[in-house]
Amino acid sequence: MMLTIESRRELQAWSDGERAAGRCVALVPTMGALHAGHLSLVETARLRADRVVVSIFVNPTQFNDSKDFDAYPRPMEVDLAACRSAGVDVVWAPRAEELYPAGAASWVDVEGLSEPLCGGNRPGHFRGVTTVVTKLFLAARPHVAVFGEKDFQQLTVIRRMAEDLGFGIEILGAPTLRESDGLALWSRNVHLGAKAREQAIRIFESLALAESLLARGERSTATILEAVHKKLGEATLASIDYAELRDPASLELIAEAVEGPTLLAIALQFEPDRSVGRDAAEGLRGERVRLIDNRVLIP
Amino acid sequence: MMLTIESRRELQAWSDGERAAGRCVALVPTMGALHAGHLSLVETARLRADRVVVSIFVNPTQFNDSKDFDAYPRPMEVDLAACRSAGVDVVWAPRAEELYPAGAASWVDVEGLSEPLCGGNRPGHFRGVTTVVTKLFLAARPHVAVFGEKDFQQLTVIRRMAEDLGFGIEILGAPTLRESDGLALWSRNVHLGAKAREQAIRIFESLALAESLLARGERSTATILEAVHKKLGEATLASIDYAELRDPASLELIAEAVEGPTLLAIALQFEPDRSVGRDAAEGLRGERVRLIDNRVLIP
Repeated sequence: MMLTIESRRELQAWSDGERAAGRCVALVPTMGALHAGHLSLVETARLRADRVVVSIFVNPTQFNDSKDFDAYPRPMEVDLAACRSAGVDVVWAPRAEELYPAGAASWVDVEGLSEPLCGGNRPGHFRGVTTVVTKLFLAARPHVAVFGEKDFQQLTVIRRMAEDLGFGIEILGAPTLRESDGLALWSRNVHLGAKAREQAIRIFESLALAESLLARGERSTATILEAVHKKLGEATLASIDYAELRDPASLELIAEAVEGPTLLAIALQFEPDRSVGRDAAEGLRGERVRLIDNRVLIP
Repeated sequence: MMLTIESRRELQAWSDGERAAGRCVALVPTMGALHAGHLSLVETARLRADRVVVSIFVNPTQFNDSKDFDAYPRPMEVDLAACRSAGVDVVWAPRAEELYPAGAASWVDVEGLSEPLCGGNRPGHFRGVTTVVTKLFLAARPHVAVFGEKDFQQLTVIRRMAEDLGFGIEILGAPTLRESDGLALWSRNVHLGAKAREQAIRIFESLALAESLLARGERSTATILEAVHKKLGEATLASIDYAELRDPASLELIAEAVEGPTLLAIALQFEPDRSVGRDAAEGLRGERVRLIDNRVLIP
């Protein structure tokens, strides 16, 4: 029997009861539009905990563009059915007014880690994420929370936050699920037209290319990034937001040589290119699509 | 039997146990150097809860001046004895490295409410307060937390934060304890020399004066503030940091007329005035002393 809960208080009371009974509670925060990637997070949570809570909340404060927020898919009935099949115990879908009451003015910031990569391209994004995740943690009171490694920077920022503020919550990262050709699963992949979809594989190929360069003894960051940029450049319908080598813990840039575990993080943006009169089916169906992916390279 | 706990994890486990047993836990956050005012917060907590936790932590991030922080009194043995006499169940005195681990970068901000009054004079002060109180809340996991009404803005900021983030903690304000002549109790009052101590009463007198003006039908903010400033001006050893009429909930300035409950908030700063060679016993023993006080006026 899966419970669906709307109110924060009700969820807190439920979680207190589970904790008091000695059961381990896991939270999987989502924005809904669940796909196999989300369900693999649920699976990770089930292996670790007695009870799994999935939160479904499209968080307005982490969108830079209100059109993106409005357009974000909200297939609640489908999501509920997916959770039921996956053995989720509680789905919590709060109303925005409860998480952001009138006059809300409180924010949680993680300095430093929030600034590079997606933080540079999406000002305020991580502030929105850390603020809402704090609210989700305080409502669900889990022992464990599971986040996807696809959003590597988000995972790093939340780990830092959880340790700094002392939530007493174990933050688990779950490996990225991929389509058969390597493209990381994401709800917006369906917005890619046939040609853009084919070009999107350059991301996975450039991660693999960097790994093979490293395996052949290459250590120069300049050489590795040059090869990565060249490979990404083959995606002619896209522009490169970033392709960088960084320390996986501090997210600081690796200056010259790869010496230890190193994060290769990539963001590629597909823009509808109407100037050349390209068929929408070729490029994008609708708005621009920004894809991110990453791999921690081990020399 | 009073427990003394150092580690955050240990406190979380203790609190989880109390919660699971159905007992109500109250937290009284302090920076130590406990006086009767603190003990009245403990009394308020005891009346409301089954278990009372007092945290003692001199929080570095809420001091603007590291000399102030270094000089802050830390009479731990005396404080422990006072807690024992007051029937406190747990004293939690964390180490700074546990609340601020290496690389800590997470901050909690309450916009708007943190900016006027003490926020204007002490940049970053409330950010330090809200960040450390978040950490204290997450460690002690109380049902109730008690703060003094003397620090009215702090109480307002923390109420906002608790509601916004959804701590599920009831925030109780406790009335200000006063010396026989009306001066609000504070650990640093002892630093006032005889003459400064006498002049400090002007604060209480100006609160009472505003109240009596209101009782006689005066509603003009200009007239009330003029009378308050004149009274405070009699404290010739001090300068006025602020004396303002504000909405008690939003902390917005009351522009022209007092029409509903109105906060009169005052901060007075006594400076060692060495230029006139005044005896230290007259003015200050040591560094400057900043006194704050307030009253919510009901027209």
